[in-house]
Amino acid sequence: MSKGLIVQKFGGSSVANPECIKNVAKRVTGYKKNGYDLVVVVSALGDTTDELITLADQINKDPSEREMDMLLSTGEQISVALLAMAIHKLGFEAISFTGAQVGIITDSSHMRARIIKINGGKIQQELKKGKIVIVAGFQGINLNQDITTLGRGGSDLTAVALAKELKANSCEIYTDVKGIYTTDPRIEPKAKKIKEITYDEMLEMASLGAQVMQPRSIEVAKKFDVPLHVRSSFSPDCGTMIIKEVKKMEEVVVNGVTLNKNEVKITLCNVSDKPGVAAKLFKELACGQVSVDMIVQNVSHTRQTDISFTTPKTDSAKALRITKLVARRIGAGDVSVDQDIARVSIVGVGMKSHHGVAAGMFGVLAENKINIEMISTSDISISCIIKKKFAETAVRALHKKFGLAK
Amino acid sequence: MSKGLIVQKFGGSSVANPECIKNVAKRVTGYKKNGYDLVVVVSALGDTTDELITLADQINKDPSEREMDMLLSTGEQISVALLAMAIHKLGFEAISFTGAQVGIITDSSHMRARIIKINGGKIQQELKKGKIVIVAGFQGINLNQDITTLGRGGSDLTAVALAKELKANSCEIYTDVKGIYTTDPRIEPKAKKIKEITYDEMLEMASLGAQVMQPRSIEVAKKFDVPLHVRSSFSPDCGTMIIKEVKKMEEVVVNGVTLNKNEVKITLCNVSDKPGVAAKLFKELACGQVSVDMIVQNVSHTRQTDISFTTPKTDSAKALRITKLVARRIGAGDVSVDQDIARVSIVGVGMKSHHGVAAGMFGVLAENKINIEMISTSDISISCIIKKKFAETAVRALHKKFGLAK
Repeated sequence: MSKGLIVQKFGGSSVANPECIKNVAKRVTGYKKNGYDLVVVVSALGDTTDELITLADQINKDPSEREMDMLLSTGEQISVALLAMAIHKLGFEAISFTGAQVGIITDSSHMRARIIKINGGKIQQELKKGKIVIVAGFQGINLNQDITTLGRGGSDLTAVALAKELKANSCEIYTDVKGIYTTDPRIEPKAKKIKEITYDEMLEMASLGAQVMQPRSIEVAKKFDVPLHVRSSFSPDCGTMIIKEVKKMEEVVVNGVTLNKNEVKITLCNVSDKPGVAAKLFKELACGQVSVDMIVQNVSHTRQTDISFTTPKTDSAKALRITKLVARRIGAGDVSVDQDIARVSIVGVGMKSHHGVAAGMFGVLAENKINIEMISTSDISISCIIKKKFAETAVRALHKKFGLAK
Repeated sequence: MSKGLIVQKFGGSSVANPECIKNVAKRVTGYKKNGYDLVVVVSALGDTTDELITLADQINKDPSEREMDMLLSTGEQISVALLAMAIHKLGFEAISFTGAQVGIITDSSHMRARIIKINGGKIQQELKKGKIVIVAGFQGINLNQDITTLGRGGSDLTAVALAKELKANSCEIYTDVKGIYTTDPRIEPKAKKIKEITYDEMLEMASLGAQVMQPRSIEVAKKFDVPLHVRSSFSPDCGTMIIKEVKKMEEVVVNGVTLNKNEVKITLCNVSDKPGVAAKLFKELACGQVSVDMIVQNVSHTRQTDISFTTPKTDSAKALRITKLVARRIGAGDVSVDQDIARVSIVGVGMKSHHGVAAGMFGVLAENKINIEMISTSDISISCIIKKKFAETAVRALHKKFGLAK
């Protein structure tokens, strides 16, 4: 009798070379020996995806997205075959599948496809035969039989979607860190591993720069209530559980501090302070598929105001071009770009019911003589834009202030 | 109106790097510009296949053949995507497909699958839209949706099978040499490119060591009368046509001289000269899947004889083990292995109707003081086993004797 089904996902660093792959095989078969059924989702080996992108870039700077998916999906196909061989070597039965073969049906948005449905039948069949089933992450197939990919970090999504479809008992996300930390341990060595965190907090942490898990996969896990266990592929220790609700005697107010240095701030100066101007700008940016994060428009004392927003570095050239166009059209002033910014954020479900958290954050930054350029808040997070050079000082000070090292 | 359909196949050396791929794209689009419909079959980039095999070898010395096919088929998938991007860059429409996507259905003999049928519909559809269709060579899919591969050189087979299925006007095999030569130009610089050669001669040439084309694909071309044009991907010159019948005013007797240094000779000594002994040995070798090429049993003057045969180096360990077992069972004498042999052969349809060809061959070897250890003949070829050190001398002497440099 099976003790239940576990879906395990191993990222690129966990399968970077033959030794790593053998290590994963040992881990997986250990669970099998203990009586679990296993579906294993694997990413491409180490830097394979980047190498393939470089190859494409040498041939065509603006490659067809359908052909990019054809190209990139080979990375995961290599991984699943090699992992199956490593598991066979240990004397266990295993079978590998591409996304297409297990019927991961997606829409046709190449390079960022959304999963429409999964035909779990083939996997169930092989599990019944006692086999460990290995599935290529990150990829699917559309109704026209074209190979699609789910975007960066898409293997997490594959794992979560399979866990939901197969009604798995748990979904384990193996990575090169031991779990989710209260902040980046490279910045604050006193950072602590978080035992349990809610989907909402994790979503804030992920989209605020903690790069452990892809936000879309957490959204899907939340939607279907799939409990996630983020843990290290190099250690047997438990990692961090991402769940619906964390029940504790005494609620923690702030759960983590995050830092994002990959954004720029764009400011449109001397805008007429009248309705519809902001709408015009952000509609154009949306049409140009520019991601906009924080937006600040100051109260105006004259009849003119400035609008500032932050956007990922990768979108900055496009954002600048569009903002300049809009500026000319509406007769606004200069457009400036500030590369020298960082965003620090504090995250925690507890802050909903606690007063003074924001004040505490601003106070700590002031004590450290760090000027705040923009502020944005949500139910469970507060973010400040500051000068890049103060970023690490701010993280350490906030980590201490909210007692996260305890 | 289309001028007709051409199937073109480009081998690994023709797509070894981005520059080579761009070169292939130029070549292909040149034909498109001239009004032809095109289906392009591509092999894996340069050494990709060997690199994947090495990777597998580091993980499992005896990998599952199903998983090897899963692994190796990624090589061609990478090539087709990159070639499509290169063609797009030149402003032409192109679409890439895996073997599975265009319905190349095979049996389930992984790593050496045979094509059962091809559903040409998808290709026809895309050709009608004016697209250049690029198909991954070497691979297919079995009825269970598992990926299969056709064995080394399988891309040739893909091209020939597609040419047959789509009723192509011609099938061009692009390679890194300019065509089929009267002998290896590295051995005899006076070697000449052959303009036309029959399927049968080419089969003899291919299986006798000329490594330009895979024998199975020539067999299929012969069976369905698909004319092949073997030519260089780096030169616009015509190469060699492989066709059913070559019509010439004056028939050429010998068309080529081939050399094979990749075999060993195994001799079983002091065998009782009675019926059934040879049968026993070669039945066991066949059961062990050992390829046996030439066989010689001498006339016996006592009541004992020796049996010698040649086998590829790769099979030699297995062949030796089986021969020793049989020797013990039938009470024969010692078993010896000779690594120091080479096979030189002359090939030509003309020799069927010409006398004295064999005598001419033996005479040339004698003049050069080269001892002949074994002889084997077919309708259109004569092969001699000689000491390895005389191999090149023999090739050059035979090339001259039969007037191939003219």
